[in-house]
Amino acid sequence: MAQVTFEEISASDFFYRNRDIAGFTNPSRAIFAAIRELVENSLDAAEGLKIPPDIYVRLSQEGEASKETHVYRLRVEDNGIGVPPRHIPSAFGQVLFGSKYKLKQQRGTFGLGGKMAILYGQITTHQPATIISSTGGMSKIYIYKLMIDIQRNRPIILDRKVVINKEHWQGTVVEFCLEGDYLRAMPKILEYFKQTAMVNPYANLTFVDPKGRLYRFSRVTRDMPDPPKETLPHPYGVDVELLQRLIQVTPYNNMLDFLKNHFHRVGEITARKFLEFANISPSKKPNKLSHQEIVRLMQMLKKFKEFLPPDAGCLSPLGEELLKAGIVKELNPDFVVVHQRKPSTYAGHPFIIEVGIAYGGEVPRKGSFVIYRFANRIPLLYDEASDVSVKVINSMNWRRYKVTPDMPIAIVVHVCSTKVPYKTVGKEFIADRPEVRREIANGLREVARQIRRFLTKREHVDRERKRLGVFSKYLPKIAQFSTRLAGMDKSPDVEKLLRSVKKFGTEGT
Amino acid sequence: MAQVTFEEISASDFFYRNRDIAGFTNPSRAIFAAIRELVENSLDAAEGLKIPPDIYVRLSQEGEASKETHVYRLRVEDNGIGVPPRHIPSAFGQVLFGSKYKLKQQRGTFGLGGKMAILYGQITTHQPATIISSTGGMSKIYIYKLMIDIQRNRPIILDRKVVINKEHWQGTVVEFCLEGDYLRAMPKILEYFKQTAMVNPYANLTFVDPKGRLYRFSRVTRDMPDPPKETLPHPYGVDVELLQRLIQVTPYNNMLDFLKNHFHRVGEITARKFLEFANISPSKKPNKLSHQEIVRLMQMLKKFKEFLPPDAGCLSPLGEELLKAGIVKELNPDFVVVHQRKPSTYAGHPFIIEVGIAYGGEVPRKGSFVIYRFANRIPLLYDEASDVSVKVINSMNWRRYKVTPDMPIAIVVHVCSTKVPYKTVGKEFIADRPEVRREIANGLREVARQIRRFLTKREHVDRERKRLGVFSKYLPKIAQFSTRLAGMDKSPDVEKLLRSVKKFGTEGT
Repeated sequence: MAQVTFEEISASDFFYRNRDIAGFTNPSRAIFAAIRELVENSLDAAEGLKIPPDIYVRLSQEGEASKETHVYRLRVEDNGIGVPPRHIPSAFGQVLFGSKYKLKQQRGTFGLGGKMAILYGQITTHQPATIISSTGGMSKIYIYKLMIDIQRNRPIILDRKVVINKEHWQGTVVEFCLEGDYLRAMPKILEYFKQTAMVNPYANLTFVDPKGRLYRFSRVTRDMPDPPKETLPHPYGVDVELLQRLIQVTPYNNMLDFLKNHFHRVGEITARKFLEFANISPSKKPNKLSHQEIVRLMQMLKKFKEFLPPDAGCLSPLGEELLKAGIVKELNPDFVVVHQRKPSTYAGHPFIIEVGIAYGGEVPRKGSFVIYRFANRIPLLYDEASDVSVKVINSMNWRRYKVTPDMPIAIVVHVCSTKVPYKTVGKEFIADRPEVRREIANGLREVARQIRRFLTKREHVDRERKRLGVFSKYLPKIAQFSTRLAGMDKSPDVEKLLRSVKKFGTEGT
Repeated sequence: MAQVTFEEISASDFFYRNRDIAGFTNPSRAIFAAIRELVENSLDAAEGLKIPPDIYVRLSQEGEASKETHVYRLRVEDNGIGVPPRHIPSAFGQVLFGSKYKLKQQRGTFGLGGKMAILYGQITTHQPATIISSTGGMSKIYIYKLMIDIQRNRPIILDRKVVINKEHWQGTVVEFCLEGDYLRAMPKILEYFKQTAMVNPYANLTFVDPKGRLYRFSRVTRDMPDPPKETLPHPYGVDVELLQRLIQVTPYNNMLDFLKNHFHRVGEITARKFLEFANISPSKKPNKLSHQEIVRLMQMLKKFKEFLPPDAGCLSPLGEELLKAGIVKELNPDFVVVHQRKPSTYAGHPFIIEVGIAYGGEVPRKGSFVIYRFANRIPLLYDEASDVSVKVINSMNWRRYKVTPDMPIAIVVHVCSTKVPYKTVGKEFIADRPEVRREIANGLREVARQIRRFLTKREHVDRERKRLGVFSKYLPKIAQFSTRLAGMDKSPDVEKLLRSVKKFGTEGT
């Protein structure tokens, strides 16, 4: 008789067993993922306070592990909001515990990356992580040495120190050892910092690599977006589970107040209209809804046409100006155009798409477009081929826009949302949600039309330049010949004539 | 002062919030994923007993949910090993509880798919799932009605019935309602059944769709692979966490026995050699190893060159014959060649790569290769572009093999392993592990060389056919002319001459 044994594993254990899904696939990806996850937590931590982030990352070599891999010590330091001392052990040593489980635009989504980095360090080097943190206005700094009990998904506190915070320092330092392959990861890591700096121009990023090389990306502005706001769920995005949770905790005892207070952009008038549409009494008690009525409520919420679209106030896109400046700084192109779409929504989550297209300058010709992907101000550098943006780009008929793959063209897509629909826990690429796909396509068509105009004009100019070339080559000769023929001494001035056949200015193209 | 609140969420809640990562991205993917996850559990359940699987899937429409989506009732029935009654609630209503957390070749890896399907059904329709099961030789059948308490990650038992098992039925039935878009999912679902039948020729698969159409894929053999065996971890794949867990539970109190009994293919001689290499005393007590010594042990295990490669006995690849038969049945090509690589290992997990290439016949010409991807006998149908196989195929210089993308070429890759390194929880594609990539590349080169030989020969044959064409066109005319010239009545037989200039048989090409 075959034996089947059943067992329960902890969330920590699940991610330990399945590191590939969190981006920790090999020693090179692991070191990239660790740096990236901690930098993104640091950016979120500073942005929450509207403090221009100062982030210091140091990777130093501790020893050799195998032929290709080394043991590194990684230290990431920020000036962010800090972690309250009582939460430090769980926030860094317990999977599925954190501050990221909110509907707001932030880089972290899964509340998992920092812990995965520490967990990976632990299983490859068996050394504790050190966390140092102080929150705003605290007179003390807390220092923890932690490991993770993976089987029970609990932090193990090895040491705890409290020191006086003389200099009113605020922020968090995370330091731990991990095995990795920095040499192989280096190009991606440097590209990551470069692109991160491009879309976070108010941040100072410093990276010291194992050879002691210093890479510094300095802020060019202190202007920052407002801290992201948490939003209520939009009525188009609710499911039965969410409705039930709201019903369980609501202090409101009639459907009118329930709708007005728990949903995004539902006011008195909209709520009343909806209840009429759904044939539900405004005074109905939420906790008296039957199973069937809850399902019907969800379906009616999705069917009602008059809910306002989500308020983009909770999103902080880059803005066309900044996006353009970033592209110009990076690629110095001959032509660039950017476009920000109006806010839209998928499954009730607001999102905004920003796109840009650049031609020439330092854009390399590589037989295909250079694609930059961003989501909530972080660059996405791996698994490009499966990303919704790339799918849209590949499905577009670029010939219509006079664009061919052999041209030096760069395309930028930025998705910003209170919930980016990543396909992997490692945040490598974005799922193919139809609403997101549509917005990206519309945005790209807009910039594509503009590049067509540019390319058409350039074609005319090229043709014109050729035509002028012919004139300017032969006209002086004809003039000379005619002069000699007429027995004159001095040729007439052909410059005036040449100027008169110029149709377009050719300067600056 | 900015507020940061911390909270703990359950594993269930995590996957509820992040359905995209488990393949439940939209109503069409959701219905595909639900069917697929349950079918794969059923195949595993029958294979564990070495019973040819009989799987019956019925999808029926219950009502309309929105313009594009409907509420469906899904029922999946199998004749597998069954679930012991005491485990039914958790096995179907608690995330991270199951029988899949083993090192053996099986379709399920994450122990998550079935529960995600039920969870998705619950949040879209708010109806309980029904589970009916009986394990081998039981006189009773157990019937549960369950829901999932997502916030606490616990099953809620709504009803439990026990009936007499008169007919000694064995197996499991899962039935629940979910919202989905079958029309859009249909092509992928039918393709899924077709390809699943192709690589599981010992299974009967029946699918009744919402229109009442019956799709039946009958078994062509009752020969089955042996049930997959669980393996011990291979010494090349251990990390510190695993070593520590083993040390905690080992009954052996010296390193020699510890190594011999907890690792794959480590016998007395290898263990002694390794301990000498690592300079560890054979009588050292495992639980006396310090942190540093554990890290060093892990590093030494990876460095030691003399461990035997993993035993492929725990894997059940398709075999070249079956793979070829499947391709011929499906594509009826002019030429087909398959190749099975020797077992290899990544991170200590054994794996075998099987590849095939087919030319002509019913292989469509579509300007690119037709690619079939399989992992542990299941087809992978989504997110092809990011898969390691596709990356290898795209990076190969096919011109070297006289192959161009406009040819009717199909490529099949089957990865089978005790742990397939999926990149997503939805098992859409396989991560780019260097060892796996290398094996796929080597396999493909082998079949590519053979298709080059075929294409070269075909070229010769084509040339020859043209040459013969010239002969057979003019020779009779020359014969006739000469006959008349010579004043003869009857032309000589040119057939013999024609045969003599034939260099190749042109039959059957």
